[in-house]
Amino acid sequence: MTSNKPLGAALFGVGRIGQVHLKNMVDSGRLIIRWLVDIPAQHGLMAELIKRHRLTGETQISDIESSQKVLSDPRVDVVIICTPTPTHYDIIKRALAAGKHVMCEKPLTLTISDTKDCYELARKQKKTLFCAYNRRFDKQFHTLYQRYKRGDIGNLRVVKFTSREGGQSKQYLQNNKSRIFLDMAIHDIDYICWLVGERPSSVCAFGSISSYNAELYQTFDDVDCVTAILNFPNGVMAQMEDTREANIGYEQKVEVLGTKGLIQTQNMKTSELCTITQNSCQSEALLGTFFDRYKDSFPTELNHFVDVIEGKEEILVSAESCIIAMEVSEALSESLKTGNIVKL
Amino acid sequence: MTSNKPLGAALFGVGRIGQVHLKNMVDSGRLIIRWLVDIPAQHGLMAELIKRHRLTGETQISDIESSQKVLSDPRVDVVIICTPTPTHYDIIKRALAAGKHVMCEKPLTLTISDTKDCYELARKQKKTLFCAYNRRFDKQFHTLYQRYKRGDIGNLRVVKFTSREGGQSKQYLQNNKSRIFLDMAIHDIDYICWLVGERPSSVCAFGSISSYNAELYQTFDDVDCVTAILNFPNGVMAQMEDTREANIGYEQKVEVLGTKGLIQTQNMKTSELCTITQNSCQSEALLGTFFDRYKDSFPTELNHFVDVIEGKEEILVSAESCIIAMEVSEALSESLKTGNIVKL
Amino acid sequence: MTSNKPLGAALFGVGRIGQVHLKNMVDSGRLIIRWLVDIPAQHGLMAELIKRHRLTGETQISDIESSQKVLSDPRVDVVIICTPTPTHYDIIKRALAAGKHVMCEKPLTLTISDTKDCYELARKQKKTLFCAYNRRFDKQFHTLYQRYKRGDIGNLRVVKFTSREGGQSKQYLQNNKSRIFLDMAIHDIDYICWLVGERPSSVCAFGSISSYNAELYQTFDDVDCVTAILNFPNGVMAQMEDTREANIGYEQKVEVLGTKGLIQTQNMKTSELCTITQNSCQSEALLGTFFDRYKDSFPTELNHFVDVIEGKEEILVSAESCIIAMEVSEALSESLKTGNIVKL
Amino acid sequence: MTSNKPLGAALFGVGRIGQVHLKNMVDSGRLIIRWLVDIPAQHGLMAELIKRHRLTGETQISDIESSQKVLSDPRVDVVIICTPTPTHYDIIKRALAAGKHVMCEKPLTLTISDTKDCYELARKQKKTLFCAYNRRFDKQFHTLYQRYKRGDIGNLRVVKFTSREGGQSKQYLQNNKSRIFLDMAIHDIDYICWLVGERPSSVCAFGSISSYNAELYQTFDDVDCVTAILNFPNGVMAQMEDTREANIGYEQKVEVLGTKGLIQTQNMKTSELCTITQNSCQSEALLGTFFDRYKDSFPTELNHFVDVIEGKEEILVSAESCIIAMEVSEALSESLKTGNIVKL
Repeated sequence: MTSNKPLGAALFGVGRIGQVHLKNMVDSGRLIIRWLVDIPAQHGLMAELIKRHRLTGETQISDIESSQKVLSDPRVDVVIICTPTPTHYDIIKRALAAGKHVMCEKPLTLTISDTKDCYELARKQKKTLFCAYNRRFDKQFHTLYQRYKRGDIGNLRVVKFTSREGGQSKQYLQNNKSRIFLDMAIHDIDYICWLVGERPSSVCAFGSISSYNAELYQTFDDVDCVTAILNFPNGVMAQMEDTREANIGYEQKVEVLGTKGLIQTQNMKTSELCTITQNSCQSEALLGTFFDRYKDSFPTELNHFVDVIEGKEEILVSAESCIIAMEVSEALSESLKTGNIVKL
Repeated sequence: MTSNKPLGAALFGVGRIGQVHLKNMVDSGRLIIRWLVDIPAQHGLMAELIKRHRLTGETQISDIESSQKVLSDPRVDVVIICTPTPTHYDIIKRALAAGKHVMCEKPLTLTISDTKDCYELARKQKKTLFCAYNRRFDKQFHTLYQRYKRGDIGNLRVVKFTSREGGQSKQYLQNNKSRIFLDMAIHDIDYICWLVGERPSSVCAFGSISSYNAELYQTFDDVDCVTAILNFPNGVMAQMEDTREANIGYEQKVEVLGTKGLIQTQNMKTSELCTITQNSCQSEALLGTFFDRYKDSFPTELNHFVDVIEGKEEILVSAESCIIAMEVSEALSESLKTGNIVKL
Repeated sequence: MTSNKPLGAALFGVGRIGQVHLKNMVDSGRLIIRWLVDIPAQHGLMAELIKRHRLTGETQISDIESSQKVLSDPRVDVVIICTPTPTHYDIIKRALAAGKHVMCEKPLTLTISDTKDCYELARKQKKTLFCAYNRRFDKQFHTLYQRYKRGDIGNLRVVKFTSREGGQSKQYLQNNKSRIFLDMAIHDIDYICWLVGERPSSVCAFGSISSYNAELYQTFDDVDCVTAILNFPNGVMAQMEDTREANIGYEQKVEVLGTKGLIQTQNMKTSELCTITQNSCQSEALLGTFFDRYKDSFPTELNHFVDVIEGKEEILVSAESCIIAMEVSEALSESLKTGNIVKL
Repeated sequence: MTSNKPLGAALFGVGRIGQVHLKNMVDSGRLIIRWLVDIPAQHGLMAELIKRHRLTGETQISDIESSQKVLSDPRVDVVIICTPTPTHYDIIKRALAAGKHVMCEKPLTLTISDTKDCYELARKQKKTLFCAYNRRFDKQFHTLYQRYKRGDIGNLRVVKFTSREGGQSKQYLQNNKSRIFLDMAIHDIDYICWLVGERPSSVCAFGSISSYNAELYQTFDDVDCVTAILNFPNGVMAQMEDTREANIGYEQKVEVLGTKGLIQTQNMKTSELCTITQNSCQSEALLGTFFDRYKDSFPTELNHFVDVIEGKEEILVSAESCIIAMEVSEALSESLKTGNIVKL
């Protein structure tokens, strides 16, 4: 394999997830970081990040308002988008139009038609548009997929997903403008449909708002806990539970039953220490957040994106699968709202 | 506590589960086993069981056809029924009419009205009618219930049940004349409704017949795998999966999420041995059958029945809960058949 | 295999372990229990056991003083000895002299020469003398042995044994007149030497009496915790720890490292339930006692004894291995006393 | 806490562990990396590292022969030493003499007197000399220490250490010139003595060379597997096993028994995935190397070093404990050689 010249990159959004990607961009050794882009209030933070990562001389700062100059910069090959969901559509469109490859946090956009629009433009421009479903790049999740594909458990019969987090802030819910299926459960939906290999034929969802923070979710016309079943034409059935406010740390468990065996992922703990007394055997707490649990998936995901651009790998997250995930997410929201089984 | 005089007992049915109960009746030290009752083809087996358990001089054999003499025997206080499900109704009715206490394997009868009938007669006769939902007496399941009730995990939010067994014989399916919800999933349903403490307001079920033995289940107009959601008025949501033909041994897992924590049962293995090589850490297989997994629940269940008769304990499985389990089971069967959410 | 006529049996000693064996003798279906033998103070208990196990008409009671009539009873084929250790030698000798097969709790006798004496007599009388090292019949321990023997982990390099119990009573220590190596650690020693397949060439032991009950052990010139290394001619090294007073339930762990892999046994818990909160993942306590942990090994052991007498199996615990275990036990006691490495 | 000005640093040795430290120095944000120092053959590698970590303009390269100019550089505050063990002594002495703080890989030097010498000089120069026992900074090991110290398991009784790695290269053994106790087991020895809080009064060791690579270790007059007991004045007993050539990945387990409970660390796996079939429950392999297992301990260790220099923390690894670890290591080597228990 020939060694490639580093690609020029621009990062839009230096919030929590943006900083995670920035660190991985620095560590990758495969990117020259040309621009950091965010709102004016973040200029100080951007300057600090440039200093901390020894990027002085390499990286410039841009306000998001004047970001067209970033997209016009011929030294920029890829644009990585970590801004709030409602802003994605505009940035993706302009970046693709400017001939850049794009990696964007999920969900790509707030509506299916916008997502289709983006992929259509990427196709025309012959550029990569990569929706960063990081779970697919987690070691447990990725190995599970590979084991199933090579036949370790026979034909698929049942898939189960449990996702629980420790609560979301008012600001987060406000900024993202997407409810539990589109914002949280879409990771599960994407993985399930990828694994099963087709679109479900019917779905069914129930929800509740019974946590201590129930009011917060009511404010946004949302629920804090959903259960659902996805029924597939090939006979596979998938169960999902997504809980926003679970007081037990971060959980995301998958269980896949095939005709020959079962594979399951397991929660990760803060430490493997164990204390035994006469009354119990006590292990440590679960990892607390999504960032702790999935920190190794982000550099893997980024490397995949660069590999795709460099022609070394096929893209793992297709336009079609990205659109399916949104369609299923909308069908589930409809089922939750109407109390009926929804056919796709 | 004053020591009680042993009760006289008659056992109907000496098949697989009947032999389990017989051993526990012998070991309990609280019962005199007056009669074994079964069809003529089982006379040899009954004689052998009497010899093996040192019951000669204590126990007589009766054909089921002439079992009225058993029920008229004043030395008989309790009747324990382990015959195929379709025969339960007649034996329960005659035993109660004769003034006996009755313990009967689940499901009590094939229809809700028959079950109501039986409980009505028990009430009139002031006799105990105990439906043997043995899971409630399993150490893991029972402790889970107690922990929840004493407040360890706060208010209930989500319950999850997974039940998988290694396949059923044609003969078993033929004899029991009940499909997957009434025969297998009813254990889960009973436990869930007991835990949640009320009747679900709506249920939804999907099914498939995709195992290697799919034809067998089609023959009986049944499926070999179901997933379902039970939605409760108090906001609790329960997910179930019941799989007849899982090639992984016997699984029955429960997970209960509350506002303050999570309790889960775990599968039991044939041995706790572990072998580590460069490629993997290999533990032993799961227990193979329901009998291996629950063997300790049967003597606990039997002792509970005797304790109830002796006035030492309140009955754990009420008439109401037994009827609810059947109603939910029927609603799930209807949902599976119609493809709609069913309200109760 | 032809079905064998039940053997006649006499049980000496109906204390804690005697009652365990009695239950298994009853359940085995392979023994007629002719006699229970113990001191006069136990006559009431013996009568009760006969009633509880439905042995009236089958089993007689004898005082240990007049037990020669039991040993002269031609209907008695086997004698099972569960009396305190100091009484073993006399009963074994008289039973073998009377032409009976003998199963006896460990240690057979208090001295090596007495043990050799017993085996010499057994050889002359062509009768089986079986020292009941029950660990060898535990599922985990037995499977470990088989896996090693079939080559799963290559050549043996290191063996590790950890044994911890919840404390012993003054009465127990007084009755058994044997200190920690001969009474407790001899199980580990026997298993280790059996696995390694030879006698260690040198051993080294250290001890301490630092538990809350230290005084009790000092009274008997004993320690409550020992660590030791057994060094074998073939290069295998074994580490042992035996702790009398561990406040964590019953532990007995074995770890065997070979040139190709590692096998380890794991502690068993009172239940597999797990409770997760924000602070920890809590499993249930370990099993509390040796009787809980090894209850399944006793019927297996008894069946092995009967199989040996019926010519169906080779005896698993040889005279030689029984003598080696005592020799190593004495060498360890000497090392502990002298503070030197002891060669065998 | 006031923010400190970054310290100037020089790194000696850019081999495997040197590169680990360099990455952490870059990421820490608390150091300006002034110099990389190694033999001429490593100049190319050093240039590459400077480029990869964006250190151009910040960092210069020096040959080790001419490293006095590095030590004379007033912009250098700390020297971090990752060269082969035999070279440590000279570099430490010169660095301390030049008024630098020093962090050095274990063992500090090849002899006790040299180590004492170094600490004596550090004392005179009022500079920090930090021996990098990274296990103390591992999350499991550090939490275990804290839990014990706060009283979770009462008084200490038994400590057990198991360390197994996947084999060492000829080159490694040649370069380090220290045998198994001084090179590998010294980590265990250091941790044990730190935990127990005193020097053992007597030790005993056995060794073997029975791995497939036995000849390699014979060449260096070394063994590839040792077992040992450390006996402490306060009654605590410690067992150790160190195995160079275990074909099972990287293992380092600690078990600490106190009067009130037990704490144990557990091996970490490459992934928490689990596959269940009819025959087994298979988990993933153990982490393969020391670098995988302890990767999080190295940045923690480095931050501790900087905290100590900045006066924010007391040094965790004292001169005394460093000398004790070497003394115990020598006593164990002597016991192994002479076949006797060695008193300290």
